[in-house]
Amino acid sequence: MRTGVIGLGAMGAGMARNLAGAGLLACVWNRSAEKAKALAAELEVTVAPDPASLARHCDVIVTCVSRDVDVLEVIDALLPELEQGKVVMDCSTIAVETARAADERVRATGAVFLDTPVSGGREGAEAGQLVFMAGGDAAMVERLDPVFRAMGKQVTHMGPVGAGQATKAVNQIMAAGINQAVTEALAFGQASGLDMDKVVEVVGGGAAANWFLQKRGGSMVRGSFEPGFKLALHQKDLSICKQMLADLGVALPIVEMTLKHYQRLIQEGHGDEDISALYRAKRELFERGNLKAL
Amino acid sequence: MRTGVIGLGAMGAGMARNLAGAGLLACVWNRSAEKAKALAAELEVTVAPDPASLARHCDVIVTCVSRDVDVLEVIDALLPELEQGKVVMDCSTIAVETARAADERVRATGAVFLDTPVSGGREGAEAGQLVFMAGGDAAMVERLDPVFRAMGKQVTHMGPVGAGQATKAVNQIMAAGINQAVTEALAFGQASGLDMDKVVEVVGGGAAANWFLQKRGGSMVRGSFEPGFKLALHQKDLSICKQMLADLGVALPIVEMTLKHYQRLIQEGHGDEDISALYRAKRELFERGNLKAL
Repeated sequence: MRTGVIGLGAMGAGMARNLAGAGLLACVWNRSAEKAKALAAELEVTVAPDPASLARHCDVIVTCVSRDVDVLEVIDALLPELEQGKVVMDCSTIAVETARAADERVRATGAVFLDTPVSGGREGAEAGQLVFMAGGDAAMVERLDPVFRAMGKQVTHMGPVGAGQATKAVNQIMAAGINQAVTEALAFGQASGLDMDKVVEVVGGGAAANWFLQKRGGSMVRGSFEPGFKLALHQKDLSICKQMLADLGVALPIVEMTLKHYQRLIQEGHGDEDISALYRAKRELFERGNLKAL
Repeated sequence: MRTGVIGLGAMGAGMARNLAGAGLLACVWNRSAEKAKALAAELEVTVAPDPASLARHCDVIVTCVSRDVDVLEVIDALLPELEQGKVVMDCSTIAVETARAADERVRATGAVFLDTPVSGGREGAEAGQLVFMAGGDAAMVERLDPVFRAMGKQVTHMGPVGAGQATKAVNQIMAAGINQAVTEALAFGQASGLDMDKVVEVVGGGAAANWFLQKRGGSMVRGSFEPGFKLALHQKDLSICKQMLADLGVALPIVEMTLKHYQRLIQEGHGDEDISALYRAKRELFERGNLKAL
C-alpha cells in the first residue's frame, strides 16, 4: 500500500515519520513547500508538486489539515486522480456534515472516503500511539489495518462516514468539561492555601480521578502551561461542535461556557498555551473576588 | 482506643461495622434510636443514651452526620464529657468555618478536634476502603492510624483544622464538573446515533479518561441512575462550597451551574438518584431542541 500524507503540521509530520518507519510512505505534500521538502529529505520520499500528483502515485491518501474548508479544498484537488481502488482517510477534526460532503465527492470517482480523526495529540502522533475513531466502510477500515497500526495503538470502527467525527466531538466536549472541572476545583484549593501536590494526589485517588488532573494538575498549579494540546486548537474543535449542535437546534452549557472563556484567553495572548491555561481565568476570580470577570 | 460512632447513616453504619471488626468499637449513638439498637445488637456493643454518655466511655469519638448545624449540635452535647486525652474526629462534610468553630469549642475542654471528611461513598465505607482528608494536629492523625486503617485505605494529613474540609470541597467541585462533562458529551453522542458502548470505551482510552465515565458512563446511557452518590447529597455539599466561596467573595461557574441543574432535578423527584441523573437534563436539551430548559 503506497501511502501519501497531505498536511505536515504537528500531527501529520509525526504520522508521516511512522508510516515511513513501517515502509509504507511514498509521497508527501504540504501547502508550505519548505516543510514538505525538509521532511521528504529526512524520510527519503518524494514531494508531490500538488495533491493530484500525490493521488496519482498513491493507493492510500492520508489528509491531516486544520479547517473544514481546507479539507474540502484538498479533496477537490485530489478528485481528478481518484478512482476505484484508492482510499482517502481524513484525520482532520471537522464537522460530521463536512465529512459527508467529502465522502460524496470522493465516492463519485469510485474511490472510498473514511473519516478517521485521532486523539493522542502531538506526543501520540510522534510515538505512533494515536487512537483512531473511524467512520465509513468497515471492510476498508480492516484492510487499512497496517496503515493504522503504523501510526496508532488502536482503531475503532464507529459506524458510517461521519461517525468518527461525531465520536471525536464527544471527546472534545468531554475534555472541555474536564478542563473546567479540574481548573475550577484546583483554583479553589490553591486560594484556600492547601498543599496542592497533596490535593492532586488525594483527589486523584477517588471518584474525581481523571487523566487530565494526573497529567496537568501539577503543572497548572505551578503556573506552567506548556502544550500539550493548544488552547486555540481546542477552541477551533469546540466551534465545530457548536455548529454541529446548532444544526440540531441545541446549545450546550459546557460548550458555550468554554468557548467564551477560551475566547478571552486567546484575546489575552494565551492561544498557544495548553488548554490548562484556563486555570489563569479561574485563579483571577479569586484574585478579583467576583465572577463578573469570567 | 475505645471508639464510639455518632451518626449511623449509610456512611456511619459501614464505618462502625469496620471499627467493630477491628475490635475498636465500644459504643454507638444515633438520633433515631432504632437504627442504633439494631446495629448495636448486630455488633455486640453498647448504645449510649446520649452523646455525652458516649463521650464519657470513649477515647475516640467519630461523628458522621449530615449538616453543619447537626455537627455543632452534637459537639455541644459532647462538651460536658470531653477532656484531655479524648479526640473528636468529624467525618461529616461541612464548611471550613464550621470545622474551625467545632475545633474551638472542643479545644476549650482540653480535648482534640480533627476534621476528617472522606471520599469513597457507601461502598467505600462498607468495604473499609475510604480515603480520609485530615485537618488538625499531625501527631494525633498519626496516633489514630489504627482507627483510620480500620475504616479506610488511606489517610492524608492536609494541614490545620479545616484543611480536610477544604480538600473535600475541591473533590466535590471537581466531581460536579466531571459530571457536567461526561453527561453533556455522552448526551451529544447518543443524540448523534453512535454506539455508546464503543464511545465510552474509545473516549475512556484517551485524554478525556476519567473514573466517572468508566463507572457510570454505561449505566447512564441505558437510563439507569442507581446511586452511587445521591444527587441531593452532592447538592448539599455544593451548597456548602457556594457558602465558602461567598465568604471569599467568589462565585464559580461550574458550582453555580450544577446547583441550578441539580435543583431542577430534585424538584422533579430525582434527588435520591445517582448524580449521573444529570444525564436526564442533558438528554432533554436534544429532545426539546433548545437550551432554555436547562
